[in-house]
Amino acid sequence: MEPCFDIAHLAHVEMYSDRFEESLDFFVNVYGLTLAGQDETSAYLRAWDDYEFHTLKLTRHHTTGIGHVAYRACSQAALERRVKAIEASGYEILGWVNGDMGHGHAFRFCHPFGHVFEVYFDTVKYDPPEHEKPALKNTAQRYHGRGCHPRRIDHLNLLASDVSEFRRFMETCLGSRVTEMIQLDNGRIGGGWFTVNNKTYDLACTEEHSGGYGRLHHVTYATDTREDILRAADIFLENGVHIETGPHKHAIQGTFFLYVWEPAGNRVELANSGARLILAPDWEPVVWTETERKKGQAWGLKTIETFHTHGTPPIVKKGE
Amino acid sequence: MEPCFDIAHLAHVEMYSDRFEESLDFFVNVYGLTLAGQDETSAYLRAWDDYEFHTLKLTRHHTTGIGHVAYRACSQAALERRVKAIEASGYEILGWVNGDMGHGHAFRFCHPFGHVFEVYFDTVKYDPPEHEKPALKNTAQRYHGRGCHPRRIDHLNLLASDVSEFRRFMETCLGSRVTEMIQLDNGRIGGGWFTVNNKTYDLACTEEHSGGYGRLHHVTYATDTREDILRAADIFLENGVHIETGPHKHAIQGTFFLYVWEPAGNRVELANSGARLILAPDWEPVVWTETERKKGQAWGLKTIETFHTHGTPPIVKKGE
Amino acid sequence: MEPCFDIAHLAHVEMYSDRFEESLDFFVNVYGLTLAGQDETSAYLRAWDDYEFHTLKLTRHHTTGIGHVAYRACSQAALERRVKAIEASGYEILGWVNGDMGHGHAFRFCHPFGHVFEVYFDTVKYDPPEHEKPALKNTAQRYHGRGCHPRRIDHLNLLASDVSEFRRFMETCLGSRVTEMIQLDNGRIGGGWFTVNNKTYDLACTEEHSGGYGRLHHVTYATDTREDILRAADIFLENGVHIETGPHKHAIQGTFFLYVWEPAGNRVELANSGARLILAPDWEPVVWTETERKKGQAWGLKTIETFHTHGTPPIVKKGE
Amino acid sequence: MEPCFDIAHLAHVEMYSDRFEESLDFFVNVYGLTLAGQDETSAYLRAWDDYEFHTLKLTRHHTTGIGHVAYRACSQAALERRVKAIEASGYEILGWVNGDMGHGHAFRFCHPFGHVFEVYFDTVKYDPPEHEKPALKNTAQRYHGRGCHPRRIDHLNLLASDVSEFRRFMETCLGSRVTEMIQLDNGRIGGGWFTVNNKTYDLACTEEHSGGYGRLHHVTYATDTREDILRAADIFLENGVHIETGPHKHAIQGTFFLYVWEPAGNRVELANSGARLILAPDWEPVVWTETERKKGQAWGLKTIETFHTHGTPPIVKKGE
Repeated sequence: MEPCFDIAHLAHVEMYSDRFEESLDFFVNVYGLTLAGQDETSAYLRAWDDYEFHTLKLTRHHTTGIGHVAYRACSQAALERRVKAIEASGYEILGWVNGDMGHGHAFRFCHPFGHVFEVYFDTVKYDPPEHEKPALKNTAQRYHGRGCHPRRIDHLNLLASDVSEFRRFMETCLGSRVTEMIQLDNGRIGGGWFTVNNKTYDLACTEEHSGGYGRLHHVTYATDTREDILRAADIFLENGVHIETGPHKHAIQGTFFLYVWEPAGNRVELANSGARLILAPDWEPVVWTETERKKGQAWGLKTIETFHTHGTPPIVKKGE
Repeated sequence: MEPCFDIAHLAHVEMYSDRFEESLDFFVNVYGLTLAGQDETSAYLRAWDDYEFHTLKLTRHHTTGIGHVAYRACSQAALERRVKAIEASGYEILGWVNGDMGHGHAFRFCHPFGHVFEVYFDTVKYDPPEHEKPALKNTAQRYHGRGCHPRRIDHLNLLASDVSEFRRFMETCLGSRVTEMIQLDNGRIGGGWFTVNNKTYDLACTEEHSGGYGRLHHVTYATDTREDILRAADIFLENGVHIETGPHKHAIQGTFFLYVWEPAGNRVELANSGARLILAPDWEPVVWTETERKKGQAWGLKTIETFHTHGTPPIVKKGE
Repeated sequence: MEPCFDIAHLAHVEMYSDRFEESLDFFVNVYGLTLAGQDETSAYLRAWDDYEFHTLKLTRHHTTGIGHVAYRACSQAALERRVKAIEASGYEILGWVNGDMGHGHAFRFCHPFGHVFEVYFDTVKYDPPEHEKPALKNTAQRYHGRGCHPRRIDHLNLLASDVSEFRRFMETCLGSRVTEMIQLDNGRIGGGWFTVNNKTYDLACTEEHSGGYGRLHHVTYATDTREDILRAADIFLENGVHIETGPHKHAIQGTFFLYVWEPAGNRVELANSGARLILAPDWEPVVWTETERKKGQAWGLKTIETFHTHGTPPIVKKGE
Repeated sequence: MEPCFDIAHLAHVEMYSDRFEESLDFFVNVYGLTLAGQDETSAYLRAWDDYEFHTLKLTRHHTTGIGHVAYRACSQAALERRVKAIEASGYEILGWVNGDMGHGHAFRFCHPFGHVFEVYFDTVKYDPPEHEKPALKNTAQRYHGRGCHPRRIDHLNLLASDVSEFRRFMETCLGSRVTEMIQLDNGRIGGGWFTVNNKTYDLACTEEHSGGYGRLHHVTYATDTREDILRAADIFLENGVHIETGPHKHAIQGTFFLYVWEPAGNRVELANSGARLILAPDWEPVVWTETERKKGQAWGLKTIETFHTHGTPPIVKKGE
């Protein structure tokens, strides 16, 4: 399948927190994002080199978990092509919504596993206030060096009970490609890694084992170096943040990673992919067997139990 | 201008050497590439995670400099669209050529500044022999750890007497976008950085000041980390390689760099861009003025004189 | 206790291998040491900036484990002072032995847990052959960049059934200081970290749980950076070396570590301490409780089971 | 000469600032030190793993430059031995002074080039307030991650018109050893690097070319990694700090370095020596010729002009 190219990139994620002030303090002072703006329900956060106004919309909510996932289209024409494809797909259509502080109107839709997606083109590029103006004009914002200070949003990981069906959704609605996947012995796909551009992945989906619905596994920002992640581990340690696993290197995608839980319990990651990109237009998905996965991560670290069970919100069954 | 997307990525560069054996030894044992194959005129070299058979074709020649630059199209259909656009462009057409050990037939064309380009789709993906098989199936080849061992080809820099005209060529023939450029006080463009995908650049063109024709400024491979480049500096030092400048950080593009001359005199670079990508489909070129350039590199290093004068071959005037 | 200062530093370790050729190949080509010399029983190995002829004497033997541990005295007079102190200590005296390729005559002695120690002053400073001459005259040898290439020997870890008694031995015979230790709930010392100079430790002793006698836990070389250790993990992976645990950061001493087993089964480590030194002449030992140790390593990694059981030789009881 | 061992380590430096508030803001918020205490004239600053109360005493003054240099003795007895040696040396004796917030009474003396030294044993170990308590009990203070956050004081560099005579002073009064030095073609010593312990140097002296008296060349703190220094370069850049030269690697001592000027003009450095230590008790000074120095720094960077001329205070002649 030739790449579709209508969708430019993962744009932002809306994350719910039932401990909003603590979560906001974490994301600004420990994780190292910048507060671009705030309204009555949400804080709009961004990494220092994200070009859009925000990449994380942190919303006050009665639960944790995910509000919606947004992708930006390549142009107005591309957006219209995508909307047609989505409308024709048979997936649930939520329709056009007005934008917020960070972008213009967006088209929302949903898949059977409960995650809301939106696509849009009209955006707000970040215009830094004086104290956030960068020394180098080719970065979006000042390199402030506060907390873990990742460079840009990287990807998110959603849980779904049927990854094969989730894949069909990603291909149909967003033109995403699978770059790597897990093929279980029982014939099911255990996980899939998707991309719409040269990044190795911007969204992963792994199988929901706990009967949850619409749950988030984690959201990830990218650092420039692996050393940033080692340094982050010390910062998390000093700030009493729960370090779940890492730093280590994933076998899948070869990403150097570190997973922690923000104060409300949402899992967030810092990751570095080095110079790895998916440049081949005819890239064949790398398929990992269950046996291969049992070797653990790249350098042998065993995947810890909570990684298979913890998602946010803790457990919300469909229809509850 | 909406991105064109027909061209997937910079594929390989043919470099000439008049000290072939020394150059080959340098690229394999010091720079750390792998020799994928060899025929009577050329060695086919690759970095450990390049997915194609080769990315550097080192050719025995009576001069140094560059043979040709190759881009891979996204599909057969995309290749055909591009060939039509090139044929309609008015630039010199050299026509179809048979491929070599690394790819199938390719369409060649040329611009007024003497560099030969080719586009192709049919390629040879690297199939590692037993001793080069990687431990992780998602890398193209074993991480051998020999020499500086960059991960993949990154970009090249060509010299041309008229960068504005060169830009028109890149946009017309390859659908390249300018991500950053230098605007001289005299109204001319001093340099332009081009990309066909999410990389910050895959080709740069800077103004030829020495009257040369068809000259190469440098070829660059990407490392996973900045530390790889610091380590490389020690390896170059121990091997008596001429270190021209660096390690330091470019103001333009923010790339961490190190420039050396291989034994025949061609300039080669190692570079790391961290997590920086051009994700915005409507990215506006960053324009640097002459005044801004006079501040030197990002952390203040002054550009050394040879960087403005040394190209390969040393000086070959058009028509000689 | 004021530091004694008679002993300058840990000098070398003799390691036994019952797979000598494989072990030697590992240490030269994967771990990245240099073969300084060889006689009928042993290979004399060194890291690139060790100033003495060798720091690892790898000896062909019917078992794995440790031959002897050597410390260098600060001067001939200091050596004589130490010998007197050792002779007066009541520990077993093995007496003077001739040196080998790497140093002159040495005084040997032993403690009740079966490890042979020696002290000496007369040494052979490494005089690199032409192809090992460094580019910078202040390093002992060329930075070859082969394999994991640690910079210098760092420390070793021995197993003993009574760490308190082992501590008395280290203080009495070598004037070592304890920098950190584990205080078990049962009143015993679970482990002690010793140094004779500004290094945080050059020898650690942890409790032998398996009834073994004279066993080695591991030998460690120091790298300049943590990145060297991340890179080493990939090299070990590609070479099929058993990675036991890491990379991670120790809570005790804060060292960044990676443990692997060389082909014969001896555990070897690569470690980086950053800029940490013990500069205080009146440093108070840091005492870790059992409860504190249960938190795992610095960033939460749990200590794996084999770390408590695997030593070399596998199990040799006293008197067998 | 056998090492003397009476002196444990460089303890602190008193730096003068005629822009005290700006300098203090720089050291706390950009350079990343912690303010341990303050009295009417001075701020007492420390790096996060310095074990003493302070290592930089920043004093409000009508000029820039250096107040005094302090070394800590190994014990009370060692201090008394040193005082006797100093009194017998013929150098100018300033006598005992009361300590300050950071240490007890100290013995002061001076050499002909105008720098005041002191030695003491009685110290104040840092007892962190609640918000500075570290997560790991073996570090002196919380790893706060603010600014460049070096780990500990490393060394300082003084200017003197006769380095040979300065060397005699360091050997006589402090028992320092020369680890490396520059031998000029005119027979003079151009610079010397001194240490009292296993560090490669804690004080350097280079020839004063400008007729100044008692001037400071720079003060340096050590980082755990080279990456910390690359990151610091970006932080300095964003904060408008004058980056004089670097990051690069010194040929002498092999230290990775970055030099900036704090707001009042005093030069400060960040440096990383990797795992390099001087362990040999009979280390022979490495002697660099003028020809060798002309090759520039390790990777070829030329020493910039201000490095030979800029000291603080700008120029104060003896007797003025």
